[in-house]
Amino acid sequence: MSGESDITAAVLVIGDEILSGRTKDRNIGYIADHLARVGICLKEVRVVGDNEQAIIEAVNALRARYTYVITTGGIGPTHDDITADCIAKALGVSNDIDPRALSLLEAYFAKRGVEATPARLRMARIPKGAKLIKNAISVAPGFMIENVIVLAGIPEVMQVMLDDVTPHLATGKKMQTATIRLEKAEGDVADIFAAHQVTYPNVTMGSYPSFVDGRVSTQLVLRSTDSSLLTVATETLTLKLKQSGLL
Amino acid sequence: MSGESDITAAVLVIGDEILSGRTKDRNIGYIADHLARVGICLKEVRVVGDNEQAIIEAVNALRARYTYVITTGGIGPTHDDITADCIAKALGVSNDIDPRALSLLEAYFAKRGVEATPARLRMARIPKGAKLIKNAISVAPGFMIENVIVLAGIPEVMQVMLDDVTPHLATGKKMQTATIRLEKAEGDVADIFAAHQVTYPNVTMGSYPSFVDGRVSTQLVLRSTDSSLLTVATETLTLKLKQSGLL
Repeated sequence: MSGESDITAAVLVIGDEILSGRTKDRNIGYIADHLARVGICLKEVRVVGDNEQAIIEAVNALRARYTYVITTGGIGPTHDDITADCIAKALGVSNDIDPRALSLLEAYFAKRGVEATPARLRMARIPKGAKLIKNAISVAPGFMIENVIVLAGIPEVMQVMLDDVTPHLATGKKMQTATIRLEKAEGDVADIFAAHQVTYPNVTMGSYPSFVDGRVSTQLVLRSTDSSLLTVATETLTLKLKQSGLL
Repeated sequence: MSGESDITAAVLVIGDEILSGRTKDRNIGYIADHLARVGICLKEVRVVGDNEQAIIEAVNALRARYTYVITTGGIGPTHDDITADCIAKALGVSNDIDPRALSLLEAYFAKRGVEATPARLRMARIPKGAKLIKNAISVAPGFMIENVIVLAGIPEVMQVMLDDVTPHLATGKKMQTATIRLEKAEGDVADIFAAHQVTYPNVTMGSYPSFVDGRVSTQLVLRSTDSSLLTVATETLTLKLKQSGLL
């Protein structure tokens, strides 16, 4: 892809429940939309289970390669919540009770009349040197350490955390998108479309077929951070398709 | 995780449209369910863009590590459909027009009165040595080469291809699951649950909180391929929770 933001990210979804099929991920698509909107280019997603070695290996591979790594899942109070420990190990720092997180949680527990059990206080353990990410829903914070952003797995909580951390992130050029919808099969337009991609190498072009009620249609999607280039590429393609009787 | 199938798989989702947020993936969850049902343990998922280097690197990393790699996306007729080329390069084989695929496609095109354009015939290019996977919807086949299974990205087409290839795959013990639902927060049960995991190391236990209409609830999920062990672990946990007034 060309002409895209040079600020990049990977998403690492952590959880056996996604791999077993029990829970259907709702975070990848949401984060993808969010990053595109703010001008960060999502380059890769990985899903791994609640397994220390798998998490550490993925975090280290991804943080070396992209501007940011965003993880979701595994920061709750139960024994299978091992994300904070794994991030600390991956970065070679300790993971102890953090006074800032502890005070947030103690106030929240006191207000709701729940006991600050050792399990609940697991959620106050934060890798040393991390900045806290606010959780406006259930208080237990996420955190950011170096270029690794650690968010909850529950979509509603993940979303408020993502909003909280976003103003602190570097962003680049925002990707603009244009879509041309055709009542044709991909094969009908493939040659014209491929030639058009060669003419405009700095516009990323993709073709997405669908079958709805037995009818074939295709969406041609053009993407670029340069909106005037995108307009020219879209208008000239529209003209070519009309001249060929495809639109 | 322990006591799980020793037949493993990774899923590799290929497509810029997933990373840009334009298309929301519907294949990961479906394949996860399918594999669990037949006794194949899904260990990892990756999503990469329509980028040759990224695809080849992911395929080679995953095929070395798991029994099977299942890819989705990038096998259509347009210039951004580069999956077959990348798989062929990753495995060091050629990717030319395959007589079996060509004859399927020519018959289909003739029947529908569409022209066999060079773009459409791209879909007959299959890495040398691959077995074809039947596409009961739109004919253009998927394929399996060594331990790499290449499926379409359109969910309906992916699903019929997955059904076609499944009888040819090795499968292991099927994972059994038991779920205990509680009107409690995770923190209330975390200590009991962690101790129970220690007692039953061959049952994988996970805790999944949710907030619905402002009410907190938690599902405790126990998983094992040994159904009698699973029953014992679930019944003893249920008893402990009742004794503690949590259930």
